[in-house]
Amino acid sequence: MPEHFADRIAAAVRRAQSRVCVGLDPAAEGVARALGVRLDPKDPAAAAAAIWEFNQRILEAVQPYCGVVKPQSAFYEVWGPAGIETLRRTIERARELGLICILDAKRNDIASTAAAYADAYLGDGPLATDALTVNPYLGADGIVPFLEVGRPRGRGIFVLVKTSNPSSVDVQDARLFTSLLVLGGKVVYERVAELVAEWGAESLGACGYSDVGAVVGATFPGELAALRERLPKTWFLVPGYGRQGGSATGVALAFDREGLGAVVNSSSAIIFAGKQYPDVHYAVAAGEAACEMRDDLEAALEARHA
Amino acid sequence: MPEHFADRIAAAVRRAQSRVCVGLDPAAEGVARALGVRLDPKDPAAAAAAIWEFNQRILEAVQPYCGVVKPQSAFYEVWGPAGIETLRRTIERARELGLICILDAKRNDIASTAAAYADAYLGDGPLATDALTVNPYLGADGIVPFLEVGRPRGRGIFVLVKTSNPSSVDVQDARLFTSLLVLGGKVVYERVAELVAEWGAESLGACGYSDVGAVVGATFPGELAALRERLPKTWFLVPGYGRQGGSATGVALAFDREGLGAVVNSSSAIIFAGKQYPDVHYAVAAGEAACEMRDDLEAALEARHA
Repeated sequence: MPEHFADRIAAAVRRAQSRVCVGLDPAAEGVARALGVRLDPKDPAAAAAAIWEFNQRILEAVQPYCGVVKPQSAFYEVWGPAGIETLRRTIERARELGLICILDAKRNDIASTAAAYADAYLGDGPLATDALTVNPYLGADGIVPFLEVGRPRGRGIFVLVKTSNPSSVDVQDARLFTSLLVLGGKVVYERVAELVAEWGAESLGACGYSDVGAVVGATFPGELAALRERLPKTWFLVPGYGRQGGSATGVALAFDREGLGAVVNSSSAIIFAGKQYPDVHYAVAAGEAACEMRDDLEAALEARHA
Repeated sequence: MPEHFADRIAAAVRRAQSRVCVGLDPAAEGVARALGVRLDPKDPAAAAAAIWEFNQRILEAVQPYCGVVKPQSAFYEVWGPAGIETLRRTIERARELGLICILDAKRNDIASTAAAYADAYLGDGPLATDALTVNPYLGADGIVPFLEVGRPRGRGIFVLVKTSNPSSVDVQDARLFTSLLVLGGKVVYERVAELVAEWGAESLGACGYSDVGAVVGATFPGELAALRERLPKTWFLVPGYGRQGGSATGVALAFDREGLGAVVNSSSAIIFAGKQYPDVHYAVAAGEAACEMRDDLEAALEARHA
């Protein structure tokens, strides 16, 4: 039996002494600037090769400062089959480097289709990785197939609960009718949080956490703190740090007393940090940015527990 | 300016005189049976080539009986880069045959990531198609980028509203608190339906429909009829016909008075119809199944309007 996913991500965080997750979102413009080449939409094979070169350097540079990386599938899919080959290599290389690789693809479907997605990303196929983000709109039918494939292999999922974007309120913050006695109790994402706890309760690792994580944005610190209370056994993947407005003090609320239970993602502010320092190699700048973010998070955690 | 998406799908339905959407969900087992080969998980290139052979024959066989096809992305992603190459060819071939191709990928993300997905499937890249299914959990931020890319190109989206699976109730049917005067008015999917109408209202085709469609399952006929009333300008993509329990009489409720406004999807019952008839070529059996479903839908529509 492979190690439980929650224990694997905990080990990766401890190894790096870092709660940083580096988002591998290789947007064409940023990669072109870093490499000093043009990514031509008419030549997807060349563009995908450039991204692979970029990602290799970035992975090697940030590896000392993070336990977890998160490729964002869209930036590979946009280049078609060649982009997916770069995604495959990126996942493979990240795992060779001892990093936990969360593919951010927000998949969602039911029955045999959900099983096919699960096989694709948590099974034994060419794109197999450590964890996958999934969308809960379809309910349990859209979640259980991922657990059936991932769980026996020590892999996990992160369910979207409360996302970092302003219009996350459109659906996620719609207030539910509970009963005539408890008027307007919960909102939609709190209902989803309950489901996440239920789905995860069946499988806890030695560290006490489950293999069903939650995506909770850094841009709503109050909600983040409340969800930490309600979901004591759930790993959080926290996007929205930095550029989107989440602060280190705010995201410190995502962690438990031991400083475990969450990783905080940053994408372009790390991988494209070289934009600010034209005289420094882009990979060196990325490594320094990851190191700095690690230190910022550690300082915020210490301040919180002081 | 290209033709509006709503008018393009209306034309495709009229051309074929058919409300059938054939789901191209080439599950390994079914393709293996049809071709008399084994799809080896260790040889994704060979498996993807077999699926391409299968899909070509299916597309040619069903083309006279449907205006719309819907490849399900999971069954291509599972084979990695080679599978995506088969998806690319399938989309290209479907469009050459004059079919409207809806990629069922249920994508969802925000900002530059949503823009990358939009570029990937509704832009000018290798996987560009006519329409894409999207998940509304992230709100408007997860929808608008698709319209910005797709609209000027005459392409559309279908937003998940009420899906066909039993646990769609987990989130979609959660009842909302409206006000102290209107207790327990709407449920989540009705709120999403309102958003779909808003997003679509900005762009109507000559046929009166918008380029923001809705996915509404055939398995809940009462909800389907109510949504048809509430969304008079929204194309419906209706899954769940046949195997999942939706009847022709039930799905007839998805159409407007002119018999427009919806396409009804069937996947394995058409593409793997040959399973029932071992002496018939699989493509012939698929063509006959598509023809029969077309006739069933026409008969149900006539009965409803008689």
